[in-house]
Amino acid sequence: MSGTSRIQPLLSQDNPNVKRWKKIASNPRSVKKLSRTLAEGAHLAAAALEALKRRRLSKTKEGNALPFEVTSVILREDSASEEARSLFNRFLEEDLPIRFYTAPFALYEAFTPVENGVGITLEIEIPSVKKPEKPLDVDALYLDGVQDAGNVGTILRTALAAGIHHLAFSPKTALLWSPKVLRAAMGAHFALNLYEDVVAEEIPKLFSGEILAADARGGRNLFTESSWEKHPTVWMFGAEGPGLSERALSEASARYLIPIESECESLNVAAAAAVILFEQKRRRLLGCV
Amino acid sequence: MSGTSRIQPLLSQDNPNVKRWKKIASNPRSVKKLSRTLAEGAHLAAAALEALKRRRLSKTKEGNALPFEVTSVILREDSASEEARSLFNRFLEEDLPIRFYTAPFALYEAFTPVENGVGITLEIEIPSVKKPEKPLDVDALYLDGVQDAGNVGTILRTALAAGIHHLAFSPKTALLWSPKVLRAAMGAHFALNLYEDVVAEEIPKLFSGEILAADARGGRNLFTESSWEKHPTVWMFGAEGPGLSERALSEASARYLIPIESECESLNVAAAAAVILFEQKRRRLLGCV
Repeated sequence: MSGTSRIQPLLSQDNPNVKRWKKIASNPRSVKKLSRTLAEGAHLAAAALEALKRRRLSKTKEGNALPFEVTSVILREDSASEEARSLFNRFLEEDLPIRFYTAPFALYEAFTPVENGVGITLEIEIPSVKKPEKPLDVDALYLDGVQDAGNVGTILRTALAAGIHHLAFSPKTALLWSPKVLRAAMGAHFALNLYEDVVAEEIPKLFSGEILAADARGGRNLFTESSWEKHPTVWMFGAEGPGLSERALSEASARYLIPIESECESLNVAAAAAVILFEQKRRRLLGCV
Repeated sequence: MSGTSRIQPLLSQDNPNVKRWKKIASNPRSVKKLSRTLAEGAHLAAAALEALKRRRLSKTKEGNALPFEVTSVILREDSASEEARSLFNRFLEEDLPIRFYTAPFALYEAFTPVENGVGITLEIEIPSVKKPEKPLDVDALYLDGVQDAGNVGTILRTALAAGIHHLAFSPKTALLWSPKVLRAAMGAHFALNLYEDVVAEEIPKLFSGEILAADARGGRNLFTESSWEKHPTVWMFGAEGPGLSERALSEASARYLIPIESECESLNVAAAAAVILFEQKRRRLLGCV
């Protein structure tokens, strides 16, 4: 089965797929309930395709960093960009259990999470990720109640860029697979192990690295303190405003602050994560403070 | 003149102030046209008040880093938070040429830029900032076409935290004083010198520091290359996707990249700015690579 015969035109708002997509696009809670999400745009589509191809080459689905499936690819039939059309065709060429659809403009815009996007949307199934059976000796992150979707997505993207593949999230963190977080992370989801609903006390069961708290209120100086990068780390970041909860802080072996000018109260949490994760990367690259 | 006699209740959508605020809240272009903006929230109000008090103490309005005036402070009369009420009263206690208003819920929500905010909004006059007459020998930033309001605001906040007080912006960058950029910058506007509509060729007329390009596509390694922090720098950042324009690149004396993992294409521009500005701050603090 290949080529155009696999493509089904969508015609009506009453189509059960369209109804489901509208729910997902309009209400992040249904993302969690249905374990499905939507990704609009050429960059996300390309990142998902690359991740699926890498997985096929490595032939190990279990235990690797790709806890997702693309179930449907939908193309806006009029006014999709060249890039969107080409990506749609590249998905068609792969031998993957994906359903393909086309939709006219008005219908497409009714269910896609991005207004006036490029015209390609993926429906993604989010399997529940198994927590590790014994603590992993890897670098990791823990986000404690960070609720801004843009910040959470940016932190995922920064973590991948810094070489961190394992991230855990407190129950009150933004919904990880919501279309907004997906968009801000620019495809990082497809290459990361993301553990949701992890309370602070569970962190040592997941990761054996040293638990370090990023805390704007006080602690050791990130830049002058030596040796914190010598072993795997689990950096914890809290929400803007309240910062890390007492519960999370009590799991940390030390608190660190980024030295900032007194005129400014704190950094944005995604900016703070970028500074800390790349200071870690710099030290590992150079082998020195 | 003090106390409640200075407070005027707003009653109608036909009030010319209310009409102007509605324009500002709904259309960022009117911010530019009217040279006025709105800031909602306790954090922005507190930052503006602190900045005005600092300016009064220093008694030097000209030439310092406070290119703004608060012209009006509006309190939502029902359901404003305690913090909002207390800030309103603190503004009243200052001897400043500010007009004070109260507005009922529905009217307040019609003109304020934040839905269901805490209940205090400032109207701010944005004077045009004079460009320096001769190049300043200071650290500075140049943003080239960065259009995402959240990223621009976050970069302003990060710059202030890193000790940089002078930022210039290409004509196509997001409107600096729009309510969205103000909110993301969390008050940094009130302590920075912001030069708008600066084309790349003008940079050497404003700043005498070395012009350095942040470029994800290639260049020297930020972490291993020595000495770039020895003199004042003008770091340039481009838009997500296209990066720096040819025009901006041609002004740079060198290009630098942040070493990232190959799985990830690039960092978010505000994350990249955080990494670079704090690597600069770290080197200056420690006096070494």
